[in-house]
Amino acid sequence: MTDYVAPLAEMRFVLDETVGLDAIAKLPGFEDATPELVEQVLTEAGKFAAGMLAPLNRIGDEEGSRLENGAVVTPKGFREGYRAFVEGGWNSVPFDAEWGGQGLPWSIATALQEMWSSASLAFSLCSLLTQGAVEALQRHGSPEQKAAYLPKLISGEWSGTMNLTEPQAGSDVGALRTRAVKEGDRYRITGQKIFITYGEQDLSENIVHLVLARTPNAPAGTKGISLFIVPKFLPNPDGSLGARNDLRCLSLEHKLGIKASPTCVMAYGESDGGAIGFLVGEEQRGMEYMFTMMNNARLNVGVQGLAVAERALQQARSYARERVQSRPVDAKGGAPAAIIHHPDVRRMLMTMRALVEAMRALIYLNAAALDRAKRATDEAARSQALMRAELLTPLSKAWSTDRGVDVASLNIQIHGGLGFIESTGAAQHLRDVRITPIYEGTNGIQAIDLVGRKLGRDQGAAMTALIAEMRADLASLNGDGDKDLATLAKALAPALDDLAKATQWLVERLKSGLPQVLAGATPYLDLAGTTVGAWQLARQAQAARRRLAAGGEDGNYLSAKIATALFFAAHILPHSQGLAAAVTAGADSTLRLAPDQI
Amino acid sequence: MTDYVAPLAEMRFVLDETVGLDAIAKLPGFEDATPELVEQVLTEAGKFAAGMLAPLNRIGDEEGSRLENGAVVTPKGFREGYRAFVEGGWNSVPFDAEWGGQGLPWSIATALQEMWSSASLAFSLCSLLTQGAVEALQRHGSPEQKAAYLPKLISGEWSGTMNLTEPQAGSDVGALRTRAVKEGDRYRITGQKIFITYGEQDLSENIVHLVLARTPNAPAGTKGISLFIVPKFLPNPDGSLGARNDLRCLSLEHKLGIKASPTCVMAYGESDGGAIGFLVGEEQRGMEYMFTMMNNARLNVGVQGLAVAERALQQARSYARERVQSRPVDAKGGAPAAIIHHPDVRRMLMTMRALVEAMRALIYLNAAALDRAKRATDEAARSQALMRAELLTPLSKAWSTDRGVDVASLNIQIHGGLGFIESTGAAQHLRDVRITPIYEGTNGIQAIDLVGRKLGRDQGAAMTALIAEMRADLASLNGDGDKDLATLAKALAPALDDLAKATQWLVERLKSGLPQVLAGATPYLDLAGTTVGAWQLARQAQAARRRLAAGGEDGNYLSAKIATALFFAAHILPHSQGLAAAVTAGADSTLRLAPDQI
Repeated sequence: MTDYVAPLAEMRFVLDETVGLDAIAKLPGFEDATPELVEQVLTEAGKFAAGMLAPLNRIGDEEGSRLENGAVVTPKGFREGYRAFVEGGWNSVPFDAEWGGQGLPWSIATALQEMWSSASLAFSLCSLLTQGAVEALQRHGSPEQKAAYLPKLISGEWSGTMNLTEPQAGSDVGALRTRAVKEGDRYRITGQKIFITYGEQDLSENIVHLVLARTPNAPAGTKGISLFIVPKFLPNPDGSLGARNDLRCLSLEHKLGIKASPTCVMAYGESDGGAIGFLVGEEQRGMEYMFTMMNNARLNVGVQGLAVAERALQQARSYARERVQSRPVDAKGGAPAAIIHHPDVRRMLMTMRALVEAMRALIYLNAAALDRAKRATDEAARSQALMRAELLTPLSKAWSTDRGVDVASLNIQIHGGLGFIESTGAAQHLRDVRITPIYEGTNGIQAIDLVGRKLGRDQGAAMTALIAEMRADLASLNGDGDKDLATLAKALAPALDDLAKATQWLVERLKSGLPQVLAGATPYLDLAGTTVGAWQLARQAQAARRRLAAGGEDGNYLSAKIATALFFAAHILPHSQGLAAAVTAGADSTLRLAPDQI
Repeated sequence: MTDYVAPLAEMRFVLDETVGLDAIAKLPGFEDATPELVEQVLTEAGKFAAGMLAPLNRIGDEEGSRLENGAVVTPKGFREGYRAFVEGGWNSVPFDAEWGGQGLPWSIATALQEMWSSASLAFSLCSLLTQGAVEALQRHGSPEQKAAYLPKLISGEWSGTMNLTEPQAGSDVGALRTRAVKEGDRYRITGQKIFITYGEQDLSENIVHLVLARTPNAPAGTKGISLFIVPKFLPNPDGSLGARNDLRCLSLEHKLGIKASPTCVMAYGESDGGAIGFLVGEEQRGMEYMFTMMNNARLNVGVQGLAVAERALQQARSYARERVQSRPVDAKGGAPAAIIHHPDVRRMLMTMRALVEAMRALIYLNAAALDRAKRATDEAARSQALMRAELLTPLSKAWSTDRGVDVASLNIQIHGGLGFIESTGAAQHLRDVRITPIYEGTNGIQAIDLVGRKLGRDQGAAMTALIAEMRADLASLNGDGDKDLATLAKALAPALDDLAKATQWLVERLKSGLPQVLAGATPYLDLAGTTVGAWQLARQAQAARRRLAAGGEDGNYLSAKIATALFFAAHILPHSQGLAAAVTAGADSTLRLAPDQI
C-alpha cells in the first residue's frame, strides 16, 4: 500500500488556469478566498487528509462498521478522525458565515472533498451527508429550524442523513410509503427506510435525519411527498439534547465496498405512535426541495469517482516504479527493470492519468459554474452559469464515476496477481468506487436527466452553446502556431462534430421518439463527457505551453500536461465516433427485441 | 440470486452452425462424438452443473477455503460436489481413451468447461488445473510416468497443480529460484512457490504438483528451467499411496474473489534435504513443455470470462424482469413496470447479451481449431488450424476476460443499490471474474503475444488470412438479399479495413520499432477481438436467417440471434475506428513521457 499525497500543484493549476478561481474570488461573498488563504487551506487540508484520514482507509475496510445492541461501532480511529475533522473546522468550509460557515467557494470545497474522498471514501460520507442536510435547511428551513440545527450541523457536532429509499422505492422515489401524520406543530413518522448512509454511528452526538414521507391524502407519486427533520435526539430550546426519538437502526448491509460506512435499515415509529418529525417548508414539496440539493450531491459523487481514481493512480505509479520484472524491450541486454519501463504498463498508467486529469478538469469546472450561479453579480450571468452547471452535472456524476471504476480496475491490472490480494489495497479501491455509478441516481438516470431534462428544457440550447464555446477554442489552439496544440485541435474537431450531430439527432426526436432518445442516452453522455474532458485537457495544455514559454518553474509538470492531453486525444477521444454512431444508429437494435425476448 | 441454467440451445447452435462440429466429429479419433452422444453429454452436464455445482457458488464465497493445522478445508458441499464430479466421469471427457479418457473433442470439453465455470468458478479450478497436468504428462511424460499418474489424474481421484510463480518471478517466469538437485533417478526440490491454485485441499486423495525449478549450473532465465512431478504422496509401484513428500501449504491468500479456491503459498523441501521430484522429459526444457499446454490453458481462462458473464447475464435478465420500478416512457399513463421495459436497461442487457454471444462464438471457434490442429487428416490442414488456433488464443483469453469484467459490472449496475449488497450475489461475479484478466498471462502479455509472437512469426500472414476469410463472408452476407444481413456486412467492412490497416502498421514496425508496436498491442487485441466477434455474430445471424426461412422451430431464439448481431454491429463494432487510431496514431503519446515523469 502506498501513502496518499494530495495533488496540490495539480489542483492549483486547474483552479487557476481553467476554472478561473481569481475571478470567482472577486464575486461578492467570496472575497475571503484570497490566493494566500486558498493556498493555506489547500495545504493544511492536504496534510490532514494524508496524515489523519488516509491511514483509516485500510483499517476501515478490514474492520467495517458493526451493529452491537442497536448501536453502530465504527472502525478503530474513526472517532478520533471525526473529532479532529470537526475541531479543524473542515466541516464548515463551504457554508454561509451567518451560521458559522467559512463561506469559501464550492470550487475550493470540491478540492477539499476530493482529498477527503481520496483519503477514505467511507469516512468522508458522514460529513458529505451532513453537507446535504445543511443545504436543505439553509434553503428551505424556517428561521427557527435554521437556528436550532444549522450551527451544530455546520460545525459537525451533529451529523445529517438523507432518507429516501424504501425497498419498493429506489430510483422511483415517488413509490415510497413512509407516512407522516400531523399532530399539532409536529408530525408522527412511521415507516422503514433502507440504504441510509451513517443512519446510526458513534461519531457525532446527534443525528439529524431528513426523511421523505407521505402525508395522508397526499397525491400518489413524487407530488405527494413532504420533507421532515427527524432528529435522533430532540433538541431542547437551549440547544442541549432532549428525549430520544422513536427511530433505530435495524441492521447494516453487508456490502461490496465502503465497509466502514454503515449502511442502515432505519425504522421510524415502531413503538410509540410515530417518530417525531418537523416539516421542512411546505407539505408536498419535498421532492422539489430534494432537487435543489441534487446538483451539489451529484457533483460530489463525481468527485468520489475522481478521488478514488486519483488514489489508485498514485498507488499504480508507485508500484510500477518499484516492481522489477523482465527486461524492457528497448534495452539491449541489460538487467530486468521496473515495470514502468514496459510500453503496455506505460499505456495503462497514461490512461489512468489522462482520465483522472480529465475528470478533475470537468468537475472543478462544474463546481465553478455553481459558484457563479450563486454569486455572479448580474442575473443573466447567474442564470447562464446555472444552466451550464446543470448541463455538466450528469457528466460529472456519471462519466467520472464510470471512469473511476475503469481506473481502479487498471490499478489492479498493473499489480498483476498482487492486485487480487486484499492486503495490497488495490482491490479495495475497485470495491469502494463501484458504488458511485449507482447511488445518488444511477448513471442511467443521469443519462436520462441529460437527454430528457437538460436537452429537453431548451431544445439543446445550453449544449449547443457549450459546443460553440469549444469550437471557438479550436481557433485559439490553432492560432498559437504550436504543433502539439494544433494536433489537439485537429483531434477535437471531429469529436465536436460528432457531439453536435448526436445532439441534433436527439433534440429532433425528443417530442416524438422518447424510447429512441433514451436508448441513446448513455452513449450520448459518454460522448459528451469524453469531448468535454478532451477540451479541458487541451485548454490545460495551452496554459502549460504559455507557462513554459514564460519560463514556468515546474517544467516537468507542465510538459507532462501537454503529453497527457495528447494521449487523451489519441487514445480516448477517437471513440467519439463509435459513441455517436451508437446514439444515432443504435436505437433500433436496442429496442428491437421485445422485453420478454431479451 | 437466480439459479443457473446451462444455455444448451445456444451451445448447440454455435457448435452446429459456426464451429462445424459435424465435420470435427468425422475426424479420426473423434468418431464417438455422434450427434446423439453430444446431445446427451451436454444435457447431462447441464443438469449436473445446475443441480450439483451452481448451489456451491454462494456458499463457497461466503465460507471460503481455510487453512487449519496445515490442511485446507474447502467449503461445505465441495467434497460431495467433487466426488460426484469424479464419479460422473466429468473429469475425463477430453482425454485419450488409452488412459481412461473419453476422447471427446475440445469443442465439447469447452462447452462443459463453460458450464462448470458458470456454476462455480472457484470449484471448477481444481479439475482445470488437473487438466493441465494431464496434458503435460500425456505429451512429455515417460511411459512409466504416464502409467503411474495419468489414470488417476484423468479419473480425478488425484488432482494436479501448476507451480510457476515465485515472489520475484511473476510474468517473468525465468526469474524463478526454486532449485532441483539430481539424486540418483530422482531430484531434490527446494524452494517456495506462490499463487498455487488448489495447492492443498481435501478433495482428492493425492495432489500431483508440477513444479518448475532450476538445476545447478543451468543457464539464467527461461532456458535454465526444468519441469518436475512432485507428488504430495509418493505413489507405490502398485499405485497405492506411499510416503508423504516434504512439501506443505504455508498460508492461503485473502483474495478479492474465487474465495473457495485455495490459493496457496507452497514450501518444498523445508526439512528433509528437498522434496522428492521426478524430471519430466529432459532437463532445461521445462518452459518449452509449459508452452505446449498454454493454448488450452489460456483458452480455458477465456472460457471463464465467458462463463461468469453468462451467469451474470442470466441473473440480470431475471432481475430486470421481476423488479418493478417507474412507468416506462412509452406507456401512456399506466402502472409502473418491470425495469426490463426501460430503454437504458434494455441497452445494458443487450450489451451483455451481445458480448456473451460474441465471446462464446470466438472461444468455441478457437477450440474447434485446436481439434482440427490435433486430428485433421492432412499435415497442411493441421498446421493451418494450429496457426489459426494460436492466433485466436490471445483474443479468447484477453478479449473475453476483459468483456467478462464489463458484463459482470453491468449486472451490478442493473441491480442498482442491491447490486452492491453481497447477498444479492451480483458483486461476487465481478469479484470472481476480476482474476481472469490477470492469471495465465496478464492480458497485457496476451496482447504482446499477439503482436510480438503471432504477427511476428509470419509477418502477419495468419492474421491476413483471417481478414481475407472475413472479407469473403461479406460477399456472402450481401448475396443473401436480406436487409439485416446487408446491414451487418456494411458495418463489418470498415472494421475489417481498420484491422487490416492496424495489422500492416504493426508488421511494418516489428523489426525497427518494437516499443511503438507494444504500445499499441492492447488496443490492437481489442480491435481484433471486436471484429472477430462481430464477424461470428454476423455468421450466426446468417445461419439463423437460413433456419428461419426453412421454418426453423425456435423462431424467437433465431430472430433474437439476428437482433443481437445488429446490436453488436451498431454499438460495439463502431469502436474499431477509435481502437485502430490508438494503434496507428497513439504510440508517440504513450511513450512521450519518460518513466519517471509519468
